[in-house]
Amino acid sequence: MSTSHERFMQAAIAMASVTHGQTAPNPAVGCVIVKDGRIVGMGAHFKAGEPHAEVMALKQAGDLAKGADVYVTLEPCAHFGKTPPCADTLVTHNVKRVFIATTDPNPLVAGKGIEILKRNNISVEVGVCEEEAQRINRDFFFRMANKRPWITLKSASTLDGKTATRTFDSKWITSTDSREDGHLLRHHHQAILVGLQTVIHDNPSLTCRLPGGGVHPIRFILDTQLNIPKNSTVLHDGVVDTIIVCGANASLEKEKELTKEQHVSIWRSKTERVELSWLVKEMAANNILSLLVEGGATVQSSFVKENLFDEFHHYLAPKLIGGQDSHNMIADLNVTMMKEAIELKVKEVKILGPDVKLILTRKD
Amino acid sequence: MSTSHERFMQAAIAMASVTHGQTAPNPAVGCVIVKDGRIVGMGAHFKAGEPHAEVMALKQAGDLAKGADVYVTLEPCAHFGKTPPCADTLVTHNVKRVFIATTDPNPLVAGKGIEILKRNNISVEVGVCEEEAQRINRDFFFRMANKRPWITLKSASTLDGKTATRTFDSKWITSTDSREDGHLLRHHHQAILVGLQTVIHDNPSLTCRLPGGGVHPIRFILDTQLNIPKNSTVLHDGVVDTIIVCGANASLEKEKELTKEQHVSIWRSKTERVELSWLVKEMAANNILSLLVEGGATVQSSFVKENLFDEFHHYLAPKLIGGQDSHNMIADLNVTMMKEAIELKVKEVKILGPDVKLILTRKD
Amino acid sequence: MSTSHERFMQAAIAMASVTHGQTAPNPAVGCVIVKDGRIVGMGAHFKAGEPHAEVMALKQAGDLAKGADVYVTLEPCAHFGKTPPCADTLVTHNVKRVFIATTDPNPLVAGKGIEILKRNNISVEVGVCEEEAQRINRDFFFRMANKRPWITLKSASTLDGKTATRTFDSKWITSTDSREDGHLLRHHHQAILVGLQTVIHDNPSLTCRLPGGGVHPIRFILDTQLNIPKNSTVLHDGVVDTIIVCGANASLEKEKELTKEQHVSIWRSKTERVELSWLVKEMAANNILSLLVEGGATVQSSFVKENLFDEFHHYLAPKLIGGQDSHNMIADLNVTMMKEAIELKVKEVKILGPDVKLILTRKD
Amino acid sequence: MSTSHERFMQAAIAMASVTHGQTAPNPAVGCVIVKDGRIVGMGAHFKAGEPHAEVMALKQAGDLAKGADVYVTLEPCAHFGKTPPCADTLVTHNVKRVFIATTDPNPLVAGKGIEILKRNNISVEVGVCEEEAQRINRDFFFRMANKRPWITLKSASTLDGKTATRTFDSKWITSTDSREDGHLLRHHHQAILVGLQTVIHDNPSLTCRLPGGGVHPIRFILDTQLNIPKNSTVLHDGVVDTIIVCGANASLEKEKELTKEQHVSIWRSKTERVELSWLVKEMAANNILSLLVEGGATVQSSFVKENLFDEFHHYLAPKLIGGQDSHNMIADLNVTMMKEAIELKVKEVKILGPDVKLILTRKD
Ligand SMILES: [Zn+2]
Ligand SMILES: [Zn+2]
Ligand SMILES: [Zn+2]
Ligand SMILES: [Zn+2]
Repeated sequence: MSTSHERFMQAAIAMASVTHGQTAPNPAVGCVIVKDGRIVGMGAHFKAGEPHAEVMALKQAGDLAKGADVYVTLEPCAHFGKTPPCADTLVTHNVKRVFIATTDPNPLVAGKGIEILKRNNISVEVGVCEEEAQRINRDFFFRMANKRPWITLKSASTLDGKTATRTFDSKWITSTDSREDGHLLRHHHQAILVGLQTVIHDNPSLTCRLPGGGVHPIRFILDTQLNIPKNSTVLHDGVVDTIIVCGANASLEKEKELTKEQHVSIWRSKTERVELSWLVKEMAANNILSLLVEGGATVQSSFVKENLFDEFHHYLAPKLIGGQDSHNMIADLNVTMMKEAIELKVKEVKILGPDVKLILTRKD
Repeated sequence: MSTSHERFMQAAIAMASVTHGQTAPNPAVGCVIVKDGRIVGMGAHFKAGEPHAEVMALKQAGDLAKGADVYVTLEPCAHFGKTPPCADTLVTHNVKRVFIATTDPNPLVAGKGIEILKRNNISVEVGVCEEEAQRINRDFFFRMANKRPWITLKSASTLDGKTATRTFDSKWITSTDSREDGHLLRHHHQAILVGLQTVIHDNPSLTCRLPGGGVHPIRFILDTQLNIPKNSTVLHDGVVDTIIVCGANASLEKEKELTKEQHVSIWRSKTERVELSWLVKEMAANNILSLLVEGGATVQSSFVKENLFDEFHHYLAPKLIGGQDSHNMIADLNVTMMKEAIELKVKEVKILGPDVKLILTRKD
Repeated sequence: MSTSHERFMQAAIAMASVTHGQTAPNPAVGCVIVKDGRIVGMGAHFKAGEPHAEVMALKQAGDLAKGADVYVTLEPCAHFGKTPPCADTLVTHNVKRVFIATTDPNPLVAGKGIEILKRNNISVEVGVCEEEAQRINRDFFFRMANKRPWITLKSASTLDGKTATRTFDSKWITSTDSREDGHLLRHHHQAILVGLQTVIHDNPSLTCRLPGGGVHPIRFILDTQLNIPKNSTVLHDGVVDTIIVCGANASLEKEKELTKEQHVSIWRSKTERVELSWLVKEMAANNILSLLVEGGATVQSSFVKENLFDEFHHYLAPKLIGGQDSHNMIADLNVTMMKEAIELKVKEVKILGPDVKLILTRKD
Repeated sequence: MSTSHERFMQAAIAMASVTHGQTAPNPAVGCVIVKDGRIVGMGAHFKAGEPHAEVMALKQAGDLAKGADVYVTLEPCAHFGKTPPCADTLVTHNVKRVFIATTDPNPLVAGKGIEILKRNNISVEVGVCEEEAQRINRDFFFRMANKRPWITLKSASTLDGKTATRTFDSKWITSTDSREDGHLLRHHHQAILVGLQTVIHDNPSLTCRLPGGGVHPIRFILDTQLNIPKNSTVLHDGVVDTIIVCGANASLEKEKELTKEQHVSIWRSKTERVELSWLVKEMAANNILSLLVEGGATVQSSFVKENLFDEFHHYLAPKLIGGQDSHNMIADLNVTMMKEAIELKVKEVKILGPDVKLILTRKD
């Protein structure tokens, strides 16, 4: 533990870190209030629409906030949202100094919170543990700078690149450790996407089933003709929204039928086939910060071909299935010569029980 | 980050960890409340006499506590103290399950909190991340099992074991990094002790001066005859209690004079010389969990000779002073032959800027 | 560097280690002679049929061998081979003490060399760095205990398990670093094996082409009907033996034609199809210590199905080829359900430039 | 193991490395001869005055040297010494290529060996593993660039900087592991130096007593007045030279008496007191590459004060002796204020059994 101001900012970062995945489309933010060398309030932003981290921490600090130091991982907000601006709230509570890890990535509001604080004679220091604070909200900062969500492709295969036997059996490729790690990915992404084939073959729930619980991602199903089987789990469980993405010509009748369930909605493309570039722009417009693409092979290859991904998380089970008619982890990529292969870059290698997990990025 | 229940308990442990050093004589405790896979409240115990971690976390959770999971690093209390028993409070809030890292080390109350919860049909699981939770409150668990505080001896010397030149100059042996680490030790110990000679030569304040602030330890001065100079900082700054420990025959007049200052008090031994074994027992009886002994050489050797220490933190500066009349880090130990030397055990070696820090334990 | 006798045995092990791969079917052996605390001779066994390590080291030590200490990684031999027994030679040179890392794994001769030394009043100590010495000659010890060579399967694929595009293009899957590592594998194995398809598609030389040079493995081609193309490199380069393994019914005329080249010979199975279990037994009988199986997919799957391998070295390039008609690293394994997959165990993960190398073993 | 030419140079470096300490005043050199991808000769220079590494390796290679590749850690010599120039010898043997790790540090001969090789159409490549090859002969390269030996100060103390109790008892400060490491230091240094007080109190042999043996360093005793006790071990054991360094006025009679023993000689300074700056220059002139200064406290402080050291190896035993009249590891350094302390730099920290070893360098 560092002995300087970083000691308390690290505490605030810990608060933000443990709540990442539950605040979307807002960033995870942590806050610690310090008086006379003692933490007197700690908090985080728990859910979009609910109070911000500063408010939660002030709730615990009470009167002790007066003259206190505040450590917060993101610049306090300056605008009236569902709650009054935190910068004003801090002024009202007469805090003495505010330490901020990183300014707001939104250029329209960046610096405004700091300005309010300074104008009210509160001492402000920006940049304590900045890099670490930005890493926690990587998706939030990414979406602000780009017109699409942070996209993670997730796959799991045997050593020989297979995801299922010729009979479509795939239970289980990987170990419990790997599968729990996969559920943690779901918790940390705001949305998940699979293709129709995956729904047909596996009838997955696509929810986050961590032992201690987690936040379910919004479910996207790529289904050009709205052919999703009527008894699919995602259509009936109602635990989280399901959005079916279809082409311009999909049957309106089917749409009507499907959307009888309240948690199901349809995103209809203007083109006959669903363009991924349109879809991810639409997601960004709908405040989706991060997307986990789980398959199947055709969907993965579409995202790969259009270069629409930021990380590729691959779980490799040390098993062999063999065979030309067992199922591949990725479908056709129009690669004829080896030198045309899509190149990635290994970023991290992890051991997960018996399995190996590779985290890769685009090569460029 | 683990994917199981440990994920949330680790969050609770983080809360406890950042508040260790500010809760004495209470242990550091953290709590996280989880509803629908989402943290909805987090808190810690901030100061003895103030609300417990569970209460702080419930304050944030509000109505969401109903049916929620609670992760707490120490068994919820079952007794009426300055606050009502947390076990009852959890029952009142209708939480569903309680995960506890470790039971209360006090055999008189251990299990009682759990009993209350179970009797009220709350599911309880004990032992999640137990070892880690106990390590944070090592001093608290130690004092419960022993009749004295956890004792850390701290020293700093040049490579040749010197703490001051022949002219008593000692500013500075070690680097800024080492000295800040030393202040963190003060923050993490409830009390600090030095001998009269250290007060005379250095007139130290013995406070915790971390850049971001920290909790000052209660100051103990070993001064058999109450000869402490009247202008000593510890007698006049009033920032934290100073306790002067004297022998049975010390002047009553001097005592009267010294205790005019409200923050100064006297502990008078029943024996002519102050017996350390009596002193540490007295400290335990006065709810002192941990003691940092900072010197000087004679005081250190007394604690070493009586085997009254648990860890020895030694900061070694890569410097040479030389000389037979420069000052040693430890005074006489009655060692005539090398094989009679007091043996320690190296537990950890750290690099702190230019210096090396050794953490040693007793050999037995 | 250790300070004990291990210091010199480590030197002898270094000699053995750098010559592993060039001594087959003999083990790699290193020897160091020490007189008055000074190494006065060092050597290794360089090639089957040539002098043993002890002789090489004695050549340098000359008269200084008298009264010297000898450190040798394997028990000195006791039998007349192409050279006189080393145990006798050491006696003749009047050495004083012999330190031996490990006894001979051949039960028929184990201990005989030691006996000769002791009978001649030479002090003998066995077991210095034993484990490490055995690891260097893992293949030699293995063959002695089993009736087949140590078998390493080697493969290289893209992340999606492909070894070639649909047009059979495969140059290059992996990086220079990985391919050089592959050539080192060839140097360290006495024999290499591929199937007819690999010869047809790639026309490989199967030699060891390390920048500084290396020993070419004996080449085995699995070719049941002797259909190998006449212009294949392995039939004409003459740089190392090529052994074509065919079934009982293969054309005698073709055999005659093929064996016109002096370095080409035929191993004819007694069965119509070549049984691998017969082949590896035959290899062992012909003093082959280690076999590297390089492919293709069908050959690999045969070895896997019959459980005939000790390590699986897989080079994984972070690339995607995609497609159902690109080529797989392993052919059919009769796996219908995922739970029937062949399970391996990850032993080691290495980063090789941009690639990842997995070393796996059988799970049992 | 690298796959390129470095693979064989690493082998040559291993040969050099295991002989460092036994070749002074010559450097340690290793050589490997490679033909057809196979090592066919390996060797090192074993002792000054005896054949060079190339000759030793050629002895094993025999006729195979013709057309072979030679890997040698130092540029082959070009001058007639006790042996003919190795560059010529390599030419005579018709080798094909020579790989050299580093050129000769002696500017008078650097490049001459290479020139001979090239003139005779032998391909030469310089710089393979250069840094590593230079590190092995750090002392040799140092002496060439400076007018004194590489100087290592060695000390061992308790945690409180003591080397002996008040009764001068010092057996043993450190563990067996540390003491063996100390004997390895003796093996790796060409000369050792202690002061008269150390001889009087400990009567040391100053030899290298590694379990497997080692080379004894030349012994230097600083003794201004030639007061060394007549029964001192270093005067009578005759196992290695003892050089007594005295001042200009030391008794000629005592000198005569002492030098009756053949292995004892006197170096008489021109000044009344022995100037260290003169002594180390004299050592360099007498071809001493490296000096280990073992004490006692006064001698160490003299070398420290004159800044005559390159590394400081300090063995720290986790023990406390205490006391003002126990003995210090270093004598007076004229340091009055802490800021005047001699500052060193921690280069490496090692755990040696129960002890900690610090390797320090000068700060500048
Ligand atoms: Zn806000
Ligand atoms: Zn409580
Ligand atoms: Zn032999
Ligand atoms: Zn030479």
